[in-house]
Amino acid sequence: MSELRHDPIQKRWVIIAVERGRRPSDFKKQPIATRQVRTCPFCYGNEDKTPPEIFAIRPSNTKPNTPGWKLRVIPNKFPALKVEGELNRRGLGLYDLMDGVGAHEVIIETPNHGAHIGEMELDDVIMIAKVYRDRINDLYKDQRLRYALIFKNYGETAGASLSHPHSQLIATPITPRTVATELDSAREHYLSKERCLFCDIMHQEKALGERVVLETEKFFAYCPFASRFPFEITLMPKKHSHDYSLMNDDEIKDFALALKTVLHKLRISLNDPPYNFVLHTSPNYHVKRPGKANYWSTLPYDWHWHLEITPRMTKIAGFEWGTGFYINPTPPELAAEFLRQV
Amino acid sequence: MSELRHDPIQKRWVIIAVERGRRPSDFKKQPIATRQVRTCPFCYGNEDKTPPEIFAIRPSNTKPNTPGWKLRVIPNKFPALKVEGELNRRGLGLYDLMDGVGAHEVIIETPNHGAHIGEMELDDVIMIAKVYRDRINDLYKDQRLRYALIFKNYGETAGASLSHPHSQLIATPITPRTVATELDSAREHYLSKERCLFCDIMHQEKALGERVVLETEKFFAYCPFASRFPFEITLMPKKHSHDYSLMNDDEIKDFALALKTVLHKLRISLNDPPYNFVLHTSPNYHVKRPGKANYWSTLPYDWHWHLEITPRMTKIAGFEWGTGFYINPTPPELAAEFLRQV
Repeated sequence: MSELRHDPIQKRWVIIAVERGRRPSDFKKQPIATRQVRTCPFCYGNEDKTPPEIFAIRPSNTKPNTPGWKLRVIPNKFPALKVEGELNRRGLGLYDLMDGVGAHEVIIETPNHGAHIGEMELDDVIMIAKVYRDRINDLYKDQRLRYALIFKNYGETAGASLSHPHSQLIATPITPRTVATELDSAREHYLSKERCLFCDIMHQEKALGERVVLETEKFFAYCPFASRFPFEITLMPKKHSHDYSLMNDDEIKDFALALKTVLHKLRISLNDPPYNFVLHTSPNYHVKRPGKANYWSTLPYDWHWHLEITPRMTKIAGFEWGTGFYINPTPPELAAEFLRQV
Repeated sequence: MSELRHDPIQKRWVIIAVERGRRPSDFKKQPIATRQVRTCPFCYGNEDKTPPEIFAIRPSNTKPNTPGWKLRVIPNKFPALKVEGELNRRGLGLYDLMDGVGAHEVIIETPNHGAHIGEMELDDVIMIAKVYRDRINDLYKDQRLRYALIFKNYGETAGASLSHPHSQLIATPITPRTVATELDSAREHYLSKERCLFCDIMHQEKALGERVVLETEKFFAYCPFASRFPFEITLMPKKHSHDYSLMNDDEIKDFALALKTVLHKLRISLNDPPYNFVLHTSPNYHVKRPGKANYWSTLPYDWHWHLEITPRMTKIAGFEWGTGFYINPTPPELAAEFLRQV
């Protein structure tokens, strides 16, 4: 069983993932990066190389875990967290810990090994966006889970260990710190002004114009004023909403269009860069007994969901990781201007 | 002039470094990683390839910026921040910004291109540790600077763009967020218990023993309970002290021995891994007019300086970067046991 451990100095939770267990001798042999994958476990015909599917979009005349599917959701083979069991929150002297309860799923976005979201058919991107919505809704029925984090690692530099198009979902019994900080900022702003911080930023960015990347009917994409990375993009709904999973089909369609367009721009203009995206939606506000550390479990009316897209083209990793202080060599105004013109 | 920009959502400052300016077209040509360095600018005979030295340890019969030195401190050729000018703190609608005032120095640790701190003579490591101390003391005379951050990137994966042994110093007009969080935790603990959080952790770790890596006469090294990375190590003085630069020569000697030993253990047992270290010393408490955002500029009696050493052997970058949530596949107890036995 993995453990969630709390660092009393950084006030940060860390997953100590025993199941992914890497003993010291593993590191001496060979880094993960160089391991050869002979057959892709996410391609047709290799369905038995993954754990049994949780969900799939497939013709009704095909059986689970056989070819023919359009999209599959499977448990991660080396899960950081597992669905079974109780949290067993406990202390250990100065430290806090709990059992590694949660979910770790992989969304195999397409059977096409070489696909890229930026070049898929719009309908296929809509399908992926709907599956995100449905998985969040499903997992938020579980009272133990406080947050469902959807993210994508594209390219080796961005942390992908398999190149077949996929995204991941990790549902945790706590809200990740980065999201928590944003929730705090949004609440503080709302309590002081009775306005949404994200809506205010969007209005200011629209008025200034210089950091705008894209506007669709219902979505807005811009390079943040204090971007950490070159060509960093935030994508958010124009209509205030705290919860990704409340989108209706029209909204999902427009979201898929905006996402596809932004990723396409990055791909064709920057030589197919590695990137990550992370969905910052609402914490699970259906939890009946929120703890103090999870006060956002009350309806986060002041929250505005958004997707953060961060290309990985600079290698200034160490300093930033150790300090939370970022050096970005490309002003976001320049990045946005470039991306608008693609 | 670079700018320091504040993100109102993440409450984080970012350096938008115009001087390091990378236009979109730079990324299309070639990533930094693959640029060939033909001659090392940090080796003997190439002193004119760096900006003029700020400080050097060299025989009295040699001239500045000529060979013969044992250690050189130079301004970074592409500085993120510059010493000249005023901060010009200002607002821009919802945003805050100031000019990129600070210092960005490179400490060339040795003329020996292939050296590793873990295998240097103890006297040479002592020399490096003393230069860290002297540079912090010098920069903290400047009332504009609130923090001096010393760090090292070793190996390409850890962000080093030149392999010649060097560390860096970035002095900033704000305290980096990661350090600020730790300062907050330490103050909160002190106000509640009148004890140092780090001293308390050290006592607990000594009593438990399972995460201890090394103890010298005056220093203590352990793998933190909630380690983010495999083989992460924190090194701290046993005697409570908030300020690295207050160490006397005896303490510096023992610190150098502990640092050298720990880095040697990592190098020989884990196939010379890339790593970063970051020194978390006191903010500049000599500042006469601390702002609210820099209240640590009062004497941080409750702070305990330490060095964080983080090997870079896992490639789980994207998720962690976007969320502040870490997944560590190697329990720190296992890592510490392994490192103790090296």
